Amino acid sequence: MERDSLISQLISILGYDAVIYKTEELRTYECDGYTIDKGLPRAVVFPSSTEEVSKVVRLLHQEKIPFIPRGAGTGLSGGAIAIGGEVIISLVRMKKLLEVDFPNRKAVVQPGFINLKLTNSIAGKGYYYAPDPSSQQACTIGGNVGENAGGAHCLKYGVTTNHILGLELVLPNGEVVELGGVADMPGYDLVGILTGSEGTLGIVTKITVRILKKPEGVKTVLALFDSVEDASQTVSDIIATGIVPAALEMMDKTAIQAVESGAFPVGYPEGLEAVLIVEVDGIKDGIDDQIEQIIRVCKKHQVRDVKAATSEKERIRWWANRKTAFGAMGTISPDYLVQDGVIPRSRLPEVLKAIREISEDCGLRIANVFHAGDGNLHPLILFDARVPGETEKAVKAGSAVLKVCTDMGGSITGEHGVGIEKREEMRFIFNDEELKAQIAIREVFNPENLCNPDKVFPIPGRCVEIKKAEYERVD
Amino acid sequence: MERDSLISQLISILGYDAVIYKTEELRTYECDGYTIDKGLPRAVVFPSSTEEVSKVVRLLHQEKIPFIPRGAGTGLSGGAIAIGGEVIISLVRMKKLLEVDFPNRKAVVQPGFINLKLTNSIAGKGYYYAPDPSSQQACTIGGNVGENAGGAHCLKYGVTTNHILGLELVLPNGEVVELGGVADMPGYDLVGILTGSEGTLGIVTKITVRILKKPEGVKTVLALFDSVEDASQTVSDIIATGIVPAALEMMDKTAIQAVESGAFPVGYPEGLEAVLIVEVDGIKDGIDDQIEQIIRVCKKHQVRDVKAATSEKERIRWWANRKTAFGAMGTISPDYLVQDGVIPRSRLPEVLKAIREISEDCGLRIANVFHAGDGNLHPLILFDARVPGETEKAVKAGSAVLKVCTDMGGSITGEHGVGIEKREEMRFIFNDEELKAQIAIREVFNPENLCNPDKVFPIPGRCVEIKKAEYERVD
Repeated sequence: MERDSLISQLISILGYDAVIYKTEELRTYECDGYTIDKGLPRAVVFPSSTEEVSKVVRLLHQEKIPFIPRGAGTGLSGGAIAIGGEVIISLVRMKKLLEVDFPNRKAVVQPGFINLKLTNSIAGKGYYYAPDPSSQQACTIGGNVGENAGGAHCLKYGVTTNHILGLELVLPNGEVVELGGVADMPGYDLVGILTGSEGTLGIVTKITVRILKKPEGVKTVLALFDSVEDASQTVSDIIATGIVPAALEMMDKTAIQAVESGAFPVGYPEGLEAVLIVEVDGIKDGIDDQIEQIIRVCKKHQVRDVKAATSEKERIRWWANRKTAFGAMGTISPDYLVQDGVIPRSRLPEVLKAIREISEDCGLRIANVFHAGDGNLHPLILFDARVPGETEKAVKAGSAVLKVCTDMGGSITGEHGVGIEKREEMRFIFNDEELKAQIAIREVFNPENLCNPDKVFPIPGRCVEIKKAEYERVD
Repeated sequence: MERDSLISQLISILGYDAVIYKTEELRTYECDGYTIDKGLPRAVVFPSSTEEVSKVVRLLHQEKIPFIPRGAGTGLSGGAIAIGGEVIISLVRMKKLLEVDFPNRKAVVQPGFINLKLTNSIAGKGYYYAPDPSSQQACTIGGNVGENAGGAHCLKYGVTTNHILGLELVLPNGEVVELGGVADMPGYDLVGILTGSEGTLGIVTKITVRILKKPEGVKTVLALFDSVEDASQTVSDIIATGIVPAALEMMDKTAIQAVESGAFPVGYPEGLEAVLIVEVDGIKDGIDDQIEQIIRVCKKHQVRDVKAATSEKERIRWWANRKTAFGAMGTISPDYLVQDGVIPRSRLPEVLKAIREISEDCGLRIANVFHAGDGNLHPLILFDARVPGETEKAVKAGSAVLKVCTDMGGSITGEHGVGIEKREEMRFIFNDEELKAQIAIREVFNPENLCNPDKVFPIPGRCVEIKKAEYERVD
């Protein structure tokens, strides 16, 4: 199909104000939160209803034109990048909260509904939505489903897949199906397969999520360490007490330097090697005891200073500081690449040591910000894209970090997805047979591979070329 | 392949003591916990290792002979019944606890390892395995994976799928694959697909499960009601407080009559319409407050009597009484059929009313024992198989109950699976297209449908005949 004809058909389905096709405007959509690769879509469309999504997909399916669903574009692994000039189907106009059912603790949202808005909408009645990625002020629940997003509090409350009850899905041929809807469905767990499928199985157009009652109380401890090993051992020992903290976060020296130069400095003393943030929530009465126990564990491991927040303002400040960690890297480095490895919690000190060695080998600083409680590391590799070769070095270092994680029995992604970034690293975990089994699942939903092609799975012999290519302009 | 040749080949792989083929011995394996249907397997084999399972499956695959994995045979929907004379592959000899990793809170077991034994093996260090089906003294963790088993405590802790980290699987062609292993795996959630697949995708030969630290304290409240409506409203209001009880169980009048005639009578007063058991666990300090709050809610709803257990002995007695509910039906009825519907919690009173009407219509008593907190009903339909027509009536009443559940937006199974029992009722939830999508998933793993065929999915035009047929003897 000619490009002009495609555009005019898209306009006839959606109207003028819902189709972008001029190069200048398309530039906004050439990357997402993963900035290493780019790709200009041949068009971006903004449907307002399931029916419109279905009509657009039917057209694209008929014409064999590949397409990509996109939420807020905050993804960190390039899952929404039109690397092959695909049509981007943006879900941002499907942003309604359709239903809240308090007695049965669920809500129904459109995919473009912003994560934090759900909690804000139900907080008045004492409820909230648990998954809280750092991007929660911007990211959409549809995107969260695609990436199986996590957040600081997934240690206690689980990741997105633990909170999704049902989905409405536009299949890659345009058909609309309903999956799940109640907690217990017979047959295979298709809702589970869809969650974290990174847009490769269809386009989610309606989501039923579990909502939770806000815990009665919450308290937060900040612990400052002179040694990463002491902080790591503290993490293990806190978990061993049996307490399940709502969050258990760690930042290393370089990360501390960054957040202290960022928008919300806490005023950490000089020379710290590690900071732990430990949060406990639940019934008010139990909390103080748990906080005391946590402080005792910290003291056993040579903590320099440890204290519980004395006001809600202080607590919020600590979190604001922590949650801006990625962005704050900009204050100490022109560019950074965030990785997302997972390790068995007990291997933390070894892995941190290995990451230091990788940093020394490649000559790039690596800051570590991570969900220590569940072994989900976010090494931030600092580089300067203007220096020839540094981007490649950073990418290589990121891959090396993931190799360390998988060698320890871990994984290449905790919450950011594979996208285009980690396609090759899938081989660290899966052999050819296992990859084939995964692709066979994709083919059930997406047999012609029109829906977000070239994502998640390694492309034999193609990956390196793609990473280097300048993507052809399509108009 | 001739039967004699098959038996001798199985013996050559496994040895004489691991193959059963005489009719008399096969009778033990002609049904499982679902007693309505029967089927004599052509052989039952007892492999001791993954390699042996793989060899047996390779042989059967090559000869196109269908087969069924089986755990302890406690399943309640007929998933392990050789309705077509399949070979049964019993996993009971693969019953080792292979590894316990306390720092990373996981354990690796063989599929024949008994559920309760895992908790018993790690209790000394203060840990336990959360999913606790009523059959936990007998059922295997492999069977639990097949059925995605629940239990009284899944309200707070989730069902089996929330506790499975990885699986080793013998595919229906005999190949061995590893799925998952750590909490966060990239790609599609194949471990999630396998869990609850009722043996239709392959044979699980190794399971990595999450283990939890035992809660510091636990307390249990018993509340006696003169009205089912009051008890139901109490359930809703307890949930609305924000407390997440570890368990929230209900029994109605007929169920109370049965358990009081069973092995562990509590000594409930006469004339009760409903009993609630509410259990709270966690940090010791918070528990008393929660118990008080729960008692207050009960009192708001005309509870006749409510109290917390004053000793561990009393608490255990209450639970023993509740957990024997199914078996105790034998004291008040020659036969019973247990159903497993799921409903939105808020529809409880309506559904109970509809079940009473079904009971009156068919002239059979229906006892209700259920996980009220998560809306998982177990109506027990009491009948006498010796009375012509009563079995059919009971089966019909069971189906009618499920229709009520699905009409209210619920499901046909919370934890017992579909098996052969509820194949037709799958149509209450899924249309043809959706069933096709599910079967397409099966075909990825089990393309020739040799592994547990004729289960889970409706068989067009065949179901009624199968239910009535006398299965041909195969030797």
